[in-house]
Amino acid sequence: MASEHEGHRAEDGQTYWYHGDKVALQRRLRRIEGQIRGIQRMVEDDEYCIDILTQISASTKGLQAVALNLLEGHISHCVAEAQVKGDAEEADGKVKEATDAVARLLRT
Amino acid sequence: MASEHEGHRAEDGQTYWYHGDKVALQRRLRRIEGQIRGIQRMVEDDEYCIDILTQISASTKGLQAVALNLLEGHISHCVAEAQVKGDAEEADGKVKEATDAVARLLRT
Amino acid sequence: MASEHEGHRAEDGQTYWYHGDKVALQRRLRRIEGQIRGIQRMVEDDEYCIDILTQISASTKGLQAVALNLLEGHISHCVAEAQVKGDAEEADGKVKEATDAVARLLRT
Amino acid sequence: MASEHEGHRAEDGQTYWYHGDKVALQRRLRRIEGQIRGIQRMVEDDEYCIDILTQISASTKGLQAVALNLLEGHISHCVAEAQVKGDAEEADGKVKEATDAVARLLRT
Repeated sequence: MASEHEGHRAEDGQTYWYHGDKVALQRRLRRIEGQIRGIQRMVEDDEYCIDILTQISASTKGLQAVALNLLEGHISHCVAEAQVKGDAEEADGKVKEATDAVARLLRT
Repeated sequence: MASEHEGHRAEDGQTYWYHGDKVALQRRLRRIEGQIRGIQRMVEDDEYCIDILTQISASTKGLQAVALNLLEGHISHCVAEAQVKGDAEEADGKVKEATDAVARLLRT
Repeated sequence: MASEHEGHRAEDGQTYWYHGDKVALQRRLRRIEGQIRGIQRMVEDDEYCIDILTQISASTKGLQAVALNLLEGHISHCVAEAQVKGDAEEADGKVKEATDAVARLLRT
Repeated sequence: MASEHEGHRAEDGQTYWYHGDKVALQRRLRRIEGQIRGIQRMVEDDEYCIDILTQISASTKGLQAVALNLLEGHISHCVAEAQVKGDAEEADGKVKEATDAVARLLRT
């Protein structure tokens, strides 16, 4: 997925807002990746379906924790930046993006 | 996670209920694993947080589709088996397990 | 909403599966109705939006508890009845209805 | 539930951020209240459980739409106000409140 938001990229040594949390974020994502591989092994080994469902819930919970972390950063930084700049249209757009993202999370 | 439900394991050539769907299930899980790795790359490349949230919603939706598939099989086979056998206590236990699993999915 | 499942209606004195739980179910639903009216009062009184969101979460949780209760009964009774009768097609239909209902709950 | 956020109350003729949307918000909440009463009638009339579950999903969806509306207003107004004022601590607190509210919505 190509991002259209080039301005948010780390360019010219500029750091992105979640730069400081990158190590923690990646660690969580690798852990979730490991859980998904574990679920594949459970299916391969004919494990009990309820145990597999429990693992799926754990992975989903992990993904939502990452999502909430990103959302908090988005509101604190991307939305705030636009609001402080006083660009009402851009600020409204950012808030709309944030609540649309929450709507997508709620509907999954 | 060790399963305590050995009776559900494929033993003596006996096939497990989702045996026939295993190929499809594993394909979906590998696809989700690929999505999680894609999210790691997005974080690595400082992609826009909203785009990452969209990918997280897609992965969560994929996991829930797998969960619904397993749940359908569980009710059709594990629950039905106990109910047809006429073992009311075991049947009630299986139904409780299923709804508890749904509760966990809803709370994530 | 007109039900097409007349066979499930209490006719000729026949009781429906959740008959015994009706008092408890109605009490919970009236409690949720009261919460929704409470939210209207909060909006009327210009209460803080986060406090209103907390009440909305509580009402949603209440509705999901009712849903899980109905789902458990549906699997224990409607699905089981079809499975014990040995009508595979009807049983599969009932299971499909149950998982479709779970899918709708997850997507809200 | 007593709000501790008196500053958000409409006092001295000051209007609250969702003041303009109050009519629409209350209309939606009354509609949801009507749906909950409809569910009570369905239980009373021994309607089919799957039909009741469908109505519960519709009510939950209605509540989430109200929640997203309130969340959007909260970020646009309460969070923005603190950020523009330059009070970093208060702004962070407001963002935290918002994401905590989203977490509660996701967990229900």
